[in-house]
Amino acid sequence: MLQSQLFTKTIRHAPEGEETKNAQLLIRGGFVNKSSAGVYSLLPLGFLVLEKINRIIREEMHAIDGQELLMPTLIQKKYWEQSKRWDVDVIYKTGANLEYGLGWTHEEVISAIATNFISSYKDLPKAVYQIQTKFRAETRAQAGLLRGREFLMKDLYSFHANANDLNAFYQKVIGAYDKIFKRVGLKTVLTEAGGGAFTKEYTHEFQVLNPAGEDTVYYCRKCKFAQNKEIYNEAAHKDCNAEIKSDRAIEVGNVFKLGVKFSEAFNLNYLDAQGARHPVVMGSYGIGPTRILGTIVEEYNDAKGILWPEAVAPFFVHIIQLGDSPKVKTAAERLYKMIRQKSSLSVLYDERGCMAGEKLNDADLLGIPWRVIISDKTVAQKKIEVKQRAEKESRLIDSKKLLADLKQRLVMEKHIH
Amino acid sequence: MLQSQLFTKTIRHAPEGEETKNAQLLIRGGFVNKSSAGVYSLLPLGFLVLEKINRIIREEMHAIDGQELLMPTLIQKKYWEQSKRWDVDVIYKTGANLEYGLGWTHEEVISAIATNFISSYKDLPKAVYQIQTKFRAETRAQAGLLRGREFLMKDLYSFHANANDLNAFYQKVIGAYDKIFKRVGLKTVLTEAGGGAFTKEYTHEFQVLNPAGEDTVYYCRKCKFAQNKEIYNEAAHKDCNAEIKSDRAIEVGNVFKLGVKFSEAFNLNYLDAQGARHPVVMGSYGIGPTRILGTIVEEYNDAKGILWPEAVAPFFVHIIQLGDSPKVKTAAERLYKMIRQKSSLSVLYDERGCMAGEKLNDADLLGIPWRVIISDKTVAQKKIEVKQRAEKESRLIDSKKLLADLKQRLVMEKHIH
Repeated sequence: MLQSQLFTKTIRHAPEGEETKNAQLLIRGGFVNKSSAGVYSLLPLGFLVLEKINRIIREEMHAIDGQELLMPTLIQKKYWEQSKRWDVDVIYKTGANLEYGLGWTHEEVISAIATNFISSYKDLPKAVYQIQTKFRAETRAQAGLLRGREFLMKDLYSFHANANDLNAFYQKVIGAYDKIFKRVGLKTVLTEAGGGAFTKEYTHEFQVLNPAGEDTVYYCRKCKFAQNKEIYNEAAHKDCNAEIKSDRAIEVGNVFKLGVKFSEAFNLNYLDAQGARHPVVMGSYGIGPTRILGTIVEEYNDAKGILWPEAVAPFFVHIIQLGDSPKVKTAAERLYKMIRQKSSLSVLYDERGCMAGEKLNDADLLGIPWRVIISDKTVAQKKIEVKQRAEKESRLIDSKKLLADLKQRLVMEKHIH
Repeated sequence: MLQSQLFTKTIRHAPEGEETKNAQLLIRGGFVNKSSAGVYSLLPLGFLVLEKINRIIREEMHAIDGQELLMPTLIQKKYWEQSKRWDVDVIYKTGANLEYGLGWTHEEVISAIATNFISSYKDLPKAVYQIQTKFRAETRAQAGLLRGREFLMKDLYSFHANANDLNAFYQKVIGAYDKIFKRVGLKTVLTEAGGGAFTKEYTHEFQVLNPAGEDTVYYCRKCKFAQNKEIYNEAAHKDCNAEIKSDRAIEVGNVFKLGVKFSEAFNLNYLDAQGARHPVVMGSYGIGPTRILGTIVEEYNDAKGILWPEAVAPFFVHIIQLGDSPKVKTAAERLYKMIRQKSSLSVLYDERGCMAGEKLNDADLLGIPWRVIISDKTVAQKKIEVKQRAEKESRLIDSKKLLADLKQRLVMEKHIH
């Protein structure tokens, strides 16, 4: 894409009142726009990143046989009353008589839907998910995309004949989540947490240790012990004499064993092979794509801007034309065409008429992984100047060498996943 | 996909109170679920169709340089007040002090966002769009996906230096919409309509003539004259002596010249080459993906079920195994594997243990374009039995012939678009 055609431009100063790195850099880069506290638009650059995150999530959900669907935002009071959550948990109510609650989780709706399709042990197990806008009344909505009043959620629901089958699938989801977080570039700590309203067993959270987080995690570097602040019990750290550390962390995913709470509330039952009736055993599993986006920025930034991991970068390559002599222009245009014709790599081409300093600062802020400069200097040497965003020094190479390098990166990436 | 693994099953009887074909067939087929009046979930089969519609829309938006973004549902009162629509047009209000209106259109938000990025004639033109859930308080929400309280909308907004540029882009959008509707299998009539709150010039609607529609269109088969009931004026039909007909119609898209209404309200201005300030000239353009889905069903059905056009079908091929002798099972599995390995075609394989009649009725209801039956009869003849959903008679052919036929369909489809 030509940078002059991009809907957004970078913004020089971080808006007042935005304290987190993710909000500052994402707004300055033109990735997002804040319309009110905790409510953001994903602008074209941010949307590109979001779609890459969502694609990775979809691939891993598909790999564990999750089927995608889309449930409503407007959830009638009767659903919430059936699970006794209307007065407790539904914050955003709407409609002429406030007869709807805006969905912030969909156990009620999916349980009611499932009664149409699950009646026998032969119908189990099943797993369905959606990527959908959710709403929570956050009083402290000042952490950018880490804590929104409106945000995206991938919510997966699973249905099983018994606890054993749920437990096996629960582990499968943990495996899928591990892959998702690894692919988007996040290191997570699998952390035990309280069951909340759902279950007395521990649930699990995927926590990214980061000072911007609002959670606190107690964990051991040596064994796999990790608990969140709410349930932390030092005595639970057994068979390992290493020290327990505590750090701030961002929760990017969670997995719950719901058991039969919702199937009992919604009469979601099945008949076993002997004809006996049982409530369906359920699980629910969340990941926040917009929160992931914010977390990636908290993890990958420096004083100059964002450093997107390749798998989620809005573009893979950033061509920067410095100067507008015909030779430079021709060389830059030729490279832009070549990469697009000979690879599937996405390219942003900065052909704007502004000053070199502005272009380079913008490029650092936007954080596209591979930067290629075309200037009078590079043209004179029949080379191009390449620098990865995280590298300090650039190098002059042949444009064919660049394409080979980039393709190898792609092959490597595919090989890893 | 194996049909036994599908989250949904067909439902024998249409639910009571559902009068439209689209609601009846989509619910019976397990494509959608109604959770309350005008509020539907897209279940996995319906979601597959929706995603094909959305992909076609995205491709055509991309072709006219539309950049995708995602704006919020929660829109603060201040935005609506600035355009004087809070008391008039915002139906679903929410928040502790009802300080948000649920977005049913986004002129306000996008105008406010654009002030960050448009300040010079050099920043124009631009076009951005989103595919997003919208909310309207429909009192008569009984037309299935044709008229929802919650529904999906593709809304495109464009920004121009002057009316001429807007007019040229407006025609480009009409061209893109023509392509979209043609690709999803809908014949539309471009109909003049009133400007509503936005403009005194006529706007245009894309109407599908269908008795399930709630609009009435007056049109001439010979010339391009078409007006909706609200503005119809017989005297406007000039230069053609053919008869004017009137029919019920479903509005699947619309295009508006907004002019400077919103740019003036939000101080969205630009400086021209001489340094003079002007308000930006805007357009907005809507298409309803979920309404398209319902309209396709209204257009493509028979007494037995749906007949999906290939471009939007949830699957391309439906393999139906009749009987469970080892030979039949092996032949069906082999065909399933072969199509998946040798083509990119999506296949639903009905390997369920139920009776032949049930399988064939389900297949008719689901409406997948290419049906392939594998039975003792076909195995004995070393053939497969192929029938397109719209055809009356099936034919016995070689499985390699099927693959060649299917691939040719795909090539033809690509060639057309």
